[in-house]
This record gives sequence, C-alpha cells and structure tokens, in this order.
Amino acid sequence: MTESGIETIAAIATAPGEGAVAIVRISGPASLPIADRIFKGKGPLPSSRPGGSFMHGIIAGAEGIADEVILLVYRAPRSYTREDAVEIQGHGGSAAIKRILREVLEAGARPAEPGEFTKRAFLNGRIDLVQAEAVLDLIRARTDRAAQAALEQISGHLSSAFNRLYDNTLSACGDLEASLDFSEDEMPPSLMQDVAAHLKGIEADFKKLLGSWDEGHILRDGASVTIAGKPNVGKSTLLNALLGRERAIVTPLAGTTRDTIEEQMVIDGYPVKIIDTAGLRDSSCMIENEGIRRARDSVEQSDVIIYVIDGSTPFSKEDAQQLELLPKSKTIIAINKSDLPEYETNKPYASDWSVINISAARREGLQELKNRILRILGIQGGLPHRAVIAERHRRLLISAHKDIVEADLLLSRITPDPALAASRLRLALETLGSVTGRVYHEELLNNIFSRFCIGK
Amino acid sequence: MTESGIETIAAIATAPGEGAVAIVRISGPASLPIADRIFKGKGPLPSSRPGGSFMHGIIAGAEGIADEVILLVYRAPRSYTREDAVEIQGHGGSAAIKRILREVLEAGARPAEPGEFTKRAFLNGRIDLVQAEAVLDLIRARTDRAAQAALEQISGHLSSAFNRLYDNTLSACGDLEASLDFSEDEMPPSLMQDVAAHLKGIEADFKKLLGSWDEGHILRDGASVTIAGKPNVGKSTLLNALLGRERAIVTPLAGTTRDTIEEQMVIDGYPVKIIDTAGLRDSSCMIENEGIRRARDSVEQSDVIIYVIDGSTPFSKEDAQQLELLPKSKTIIAINKSDLPEYETNKPYASDWSVINISAARREGLQELKNRILRILGIQGGLPHRAVIAERHRRLLISAHKDIVEADLLLSRITPDPALAASRLRLALETLGSVTGRVYHEELLNNIFSRFCIGK
Repeated sequence: MTESGIETIAAIATAPGEGAVAIVRISGPASLPIADRIFKGKGPLPSSRPGGSFMHGIIAGAEGIADEVILLVYRAPRSYTREDAVEIQGHGGSAAIKRILREVLEAGARPAEPGEFTKRAFLNGRIDLVQAEAVLDLIRARTDRAAQAALEQISGHLSSAFNRLYDNTLSACGDLEASLDFSEDEMPPSLMQDVAAHLKGIEADFKKLLGSWDEGHILRDGASVTIAGKPNVGKSTLLNALLGRERAIVTPLAGTTRDTIEEQMVIDGYPVKIIDTAGLRDSSCMIENEGIRRARDSVEQSDVIIYVIDGSTPFSKEDAQQLELLPKSKTIIAINKSDLPEYETNKPYASDWSVINISAARREGLQELKNRILRILGIQGGLPHRAVIAERHRRLLISAHKDIVEADLLLSRITPDPALAASRLRLALETLGSVTGRVYHEELLNNIFSRFCIGK
Repeated sequence: MTESGIETIAAIATAPGEGAVAIVRISGPASLPIADRIFKGKGPLPSSRPGGSFMHGIIAGAEGIADEVILLVYRAPRSYTREDAVEIQGHGGSAAIKRILREVLEAGARPAEPGEFTKRAFLNGRIDLVQAEAVLDLIRARTDRAAQAALEQISGHLSSAFNRLYDNTLSACGDLEASLDFSEDEMPPSLMQDVAAHLKGIEADFKKLLGSWDEGHILRDGASVTIAGKPNVGKSTLLNALLGRERAIVTPLAGTTRDTIEEQMVIDGYPVKIIDTAGLRDSSCMIENEGIRRARDSVEQSDVIIYVIDGSTPFSKEDAQQLELLPKSKTIIAINKSDLPEYETNKPYASDWSVINISAARREGLQELKNRILRILGIQGGLPHRAVIAERHRRLLISAHKDIVEADLLLSRITPDPALAASRLRLALETLGSVTGRVYHEELLNNIFSRFCIGK
C-alpha cells in the first residue's frame, strides 16, 4: 500500500502450461519502484524510463537470479488499468514465471484477484461494464465470429447503443418531471403525447437490441443440433459429413451407435454442438433403452433437430409416429441416400415441414442443410455491431423495457399520471445504468469480475 | 522471403488455453514491414519506431479488426534472434490470437518450426547449443532448483566449462602436432611428459564435470523413491506424511492399498516421484498378485527404496526374506511406529544397512529420512554452477574423455606415439565441439530444436 491508498497488484497473465513466453503483470502506484528493486539491466532504472519503452535484463532477488526478462514500462494513464504498470516477460513454463511473480510480491505487490486489472480499468473510467464483460467473452471466444462480436463490444459499439437508450430515457424523464411543476393550464397541450411518442421510439430501439439476442447468445454460448431418426438411415454418416472427418463409427449394420455422440463444429462462424443419437429401434423396447431415452432428452433440449429418413426405403409407420412427436418449428426432415437408385423424395407428410434431399455419403445437400439450420436459429448472416450477447444485459433490457412500456401506458390513459410514469422511467434508468456501470454496487462488480481469470 | 534470402517467421509464443494475454512473435528482415501493413495506431509506423519501444493499437486485415494489441519493436541485433523482430500482445484465448497470427502470415511471414527462434539465436551467434538446450530445460523445469540450474546454463557457466575443456585440449593437441615436425634429436626432452601431464589435468576437469551428472540429471528428470514393506506397517501413512497431505486412503486394515500409487514431491528442490506399493501380503499368493508384481518392478527401477518395518511387532521371517532381495546400496530401512509403547528399535539385521527410526503418524524422523534419500541420490546440497544435466552432453563428454585417456596412454608408453595420440585428440575436439555447437551439422540441430515448442 502506498500513500495514495491504492495497492499495487500482480499476477501471471499468460495461460498456464508450456510456452515460449510467460508474462507477469503489475499495476498500481508502486509498479515502477518494485521494478527498480528487482530488475537489473543496462542503462537507467525502470522508473527513469519513459512509458512505452521496454528493456532487456534479469530479475533477481534474495534467492538469486529468477529469470532473464524483457520489462515493459507503462505510465498512467496510458495503460490497461490507467495506472502505472509494468509487464515482465520471462521464459514460459511454470517454475521460472512463478519465481518472477514471487519476487514481485516480495518487493511489495499483492496477488491480484480474478479480473482485478479489468475492474481497475472500469473503476478508472477506461472502459464500461459492457466492454469489461466483452473482454472475458473475447478470451473465451471459440470462433472468429464470436471473437469479432466481442471485439465490437470492447470497442464500444454496444455501449453507445445502451448509452443512447439511457440518454433518450433520461430526456423523456426530464420532460415529464418538468411538467410536474406546471399547473394544469400552464401545461403545453401536447406534452404528454410528445413524451409518449418519444417513449415509443425508445421502445422500438429496445426491441431492435433485444432482437439481436438470438444471434448474439448463440455466438457466445453455441447452439445445439440433434440428429435423430430410425437406425441405419445414415445419421452417423451425416454427422461425419457435417464435421468433415470421421468421428462416429459407421457400419452398414443397424444400431452401431450405442450412445449419443457429441461433437463441436462451426457453421458460418457460429459454434454448434451436434449430437448424434442412438437410432430409435424397435418401439417395443423404446422405453427401457437408455440410449433412446437420452436421444429423446437431447431432442427436447436442442435448438434444431435434423430428422433423417432413408429415402431408399418406403416411408414407415415408425417415422410417421416419430415425426408427430417433433416440433415442426425446429425440425428439418433430411431425406438421405439420394445417391441410391431406389431413392424417392415424395414422402407422405404435410407440406408445412421443412424437407430437404441429401446424400450424406456423397456430401450432397449439406450446404442447404446448414443454411436451414441457421435459419431456424434466427441467424441472418452479418451480426449487427450492437448485438446483445450477454444474459445479464438481456435481463436488464427486458426489465427496463417493461418499465418504459408501463410509463407509456400511464401517459396514454384518458387521465395521464405523469408522476407515476416519471417514477417508472427513473426505475428504467437505474436498470439501464447498471448495464454499462453508470450505476453500480460492489456486489454487481464482484459478480462480473469473479468470472474472469486471474491476470486479466 | 526478402532480398536477403532470410525468411521471416511467426508463431504464437504463449501457452495455449485461457489467459489474459497471448503473444505472436515475428522474427526476420520483414518483421517491421509486416507490422506496418497490419498494425494501426497513433503516431509513426512500427518501422519508424526505435527498437525497445512499444505502442497500443489494433491489428486489422482483410477480415476486419483482429484484436486490440500492444506491439513491441526489436531492432537487430538487439533481439532474441539477433534479427529484426516484432511481438504482438493480444487478448488471451485462442480465437483472437489465432486471427492475429493469420494476419501476420497473410502479410508475408511463414509459420515458424518448433524451436526455430532459438535456432536462429544459435545460428546468429547469440547463444551456443548448450545455452539453447537450457532454454528448453527452463521451460520444462518443475522445481525452482531445476529452473535455477537451467538458468545458470543459459547464462553460460556450463558453456564456459566446456569451452575451457575444448581450449585446453586444443592447446595440448597443438603442442603434440608441432612435435611431429621435429626430428628425434630436435625434440625437447620433456615434451611428451608435458603434454601427458596437461592431458591428466584435462581428464580431472572431465571427471569433475561428469561427477555433476547424478545431481544434474535428477534435477532435470527427477528421481524415483519406492516405499515397500509388509501390509499395515504404515507405508501409506508415510507417503502422506512425506507429501504433507492426504493422498493414499489410510485405514487400520491390512491391504488397503490395492495398487501402486505415484505422487510427485520435491525434496530440497529436487523433483522426486514417490511410489507407494501394495503391501507384500501372504507370500503364497505373491506370484499371482498383480499389485505385488508391480511393487517388485517398482523396487527394481527405483533410485531409492524405503523398506518400512512395524517396530511395534516382532521382526518377522517375511521381512528378513524381503530384505535379502533388496540392494543395500539404495535401501533405507525405516522402523515405523516409534510412537507406540511396544516399539523396539533393535531388530536383528546386519549393521551395514541404513536404518532409521520414524513415526509416520507423528511425522517424526522425516527430515533425517529425506537427508538419507538425498545422500543415496548422490546429492550434496548446492549444485555447482557447471552441472551437466543433459544426457547428450554426458554422452559426448564420456566419448571425448575416452579419447583423451587413450591419447594420454599413447604418450605414456615406452615408445610414445604422438601421431596417433594427436589424431585421438582431434577426435575428442570434434566431439567436444558438438556439445556447444562449435562443430555442428544440420541433423544435430534438427534433433535438438525439434524438441522445442513452436514459438520458442
């Protein structure tokens, strides 16, 4: 702790494990004095160097030389946390980097808590909460598109959408509150209507943002697609074809897939978990069979179901029974084996199913299948810059939206109640403010930053 | 590839997985032009910046923004490889850092091979092979002491020992070769003896270096210690006491440990694998019992055996039989349960065993036990700065040593053979030269650097 009362924190910032380089990150007022104490190199001490410079040297303390390193000097406010900061790059591998961290801690820093660097970046006004949360999303991003969405969020596009909502609501609320001071005849005749119209515009913005949720949350959390169907219709072949490699054991015998198989794949940049279920064998043993029970569960929990039918055999009663149980809105019927001479596409189901002809073996029709999956998932290609991808944001948006709709209703009544409407808008503002962190309390911050890794 | 013919290489240099920060490293003549192409920030282009400076900005290419980054500029020869180099620090997690690497490759770098950065550091004369190998040892070091030894090696202590051996041998060889031009009466009378004496000094240096092997290779590769003994004598309790935590399930019933348990621990900075074996139960079923067979194997392969005897029960015939099978030189007899009233230490074995009284339950006698383990391992505390810890170095040292001893013998005969002795010394020189890389061929380099991780 220094005179400023702000502690200097330190942590290893690179992933654990064998790597060429590892980094210890230090932030806080004592960063440079600590660096002076443990770093030996040619030329001036770290504290006499300009920010944005780095130098080569060694870290040495009571135990001797800890490592040969590169040391980076950051000067407030030009750092991630807006504090003075130092980064020490040592050799990868755990022993060397842990010794560097130990020397840093012995020289006066304390271990950083998870997310504490990013928390300081927030508290010091460099980023808002929405941007901070996106940092975590970026680290965890499994696909380029997810990384891209997180990066857009870091760069502030989503924040400015939230801020505009906040500012517009604040302005409507201000108008309303001003009106409370008027007597009835002083009141401009159209004021209530004007505010109500303003609120309707805000509601539309809310809807647009909430509409990006489907796509946004799939980017972040992934979607699940289940492949179902009778035995031996080619479900595993389809899985392999979609994955582009051999994962499921495929044989021409019915019932080869004993259990459900889960694989991760990426469709057009969206992470998708794809589940190959046990075939639905003889219906008499359906209840007992654990694999089939799991198949059912998986079908229920999936975002999309691909029901595979063998187009080279007659349409069966079993298929008809199965299809009756499936929700049309999220099911694609894939008539497989279009490469066989016995194939026929005209199967007797109602025309409102989504039906597609494929040959899993020849990998035909797969692109169209993927397009239909994306369509069911509500993905329309390019994600807007301002997609709501976090559950926390969505929850708060829904809550604020509800208050604004209620305020709108209170104003649109024959006898408007501007006071109650204004108090609704105040509630909405508080909710909206906690999205970006204009309004925050310690528990909210703990909730958000405790999910981070140490060192970020 | 640039006009110089040297390609610019790039790789991710941090360990894979979730971390706050990840690094892409670029080295070669096109490093800065590549950085100019993909980095956007305030102020001058990377290629107009001085070495030792870093800046904040974004990496962007055809696909849009890849990440928000810090970019470090290194200028030849002040870099790890002695080439122009650039490091790009982006957000941790795989998607973002992979995109950065992709942009770097698209801008003209090629993917680095394992160890290629360190190989360039060697080829450009910044480090020798012994130092290069120590970089890998440091990354893999499991204990502080092992890291320390690797670091000593990186800083060149071992290299200078090898170089002195080389220089001394070269000087002896030179003297000898000069003598070949003399006629018999021109020859200084003591020359052969002088060279032979010189060689004896060199042989002593060899022995000292080779003597550091035991300790050095244990630091690098670890030692193994097996705990053996009859059932219920307290082997698992001893394991837990040594580890300082509960690992093996301990009950007062005989035969609780069904299989061998392996644990890693550190004794005085040396990594040790400690193996708790199944108790040697009724000898009649000894052959059939898989766990006991494994215990036997483990005993044979171990560097140290702790044979545990229950001091509270009479010395048994079984113990006597077991001890007969164990090698005295690497066995410690631990008479356990010194805390019980029935305990007696005087057991009837020959006095030349290493015997120690302990109470695993009360953790008494453990420090002395550890000291004896280190003594059997040949560890005498502080490792010299110049420890031979790599099998490759040891093999080459032994081979060169053999040639020098032979040269010595050839000179010490009644009719010395200086010509043959000189050719032996040349062989020794070639062998010694390949330790540090004064002499090398591509295959040797491939052998060494292919064991590195990519990015180092």
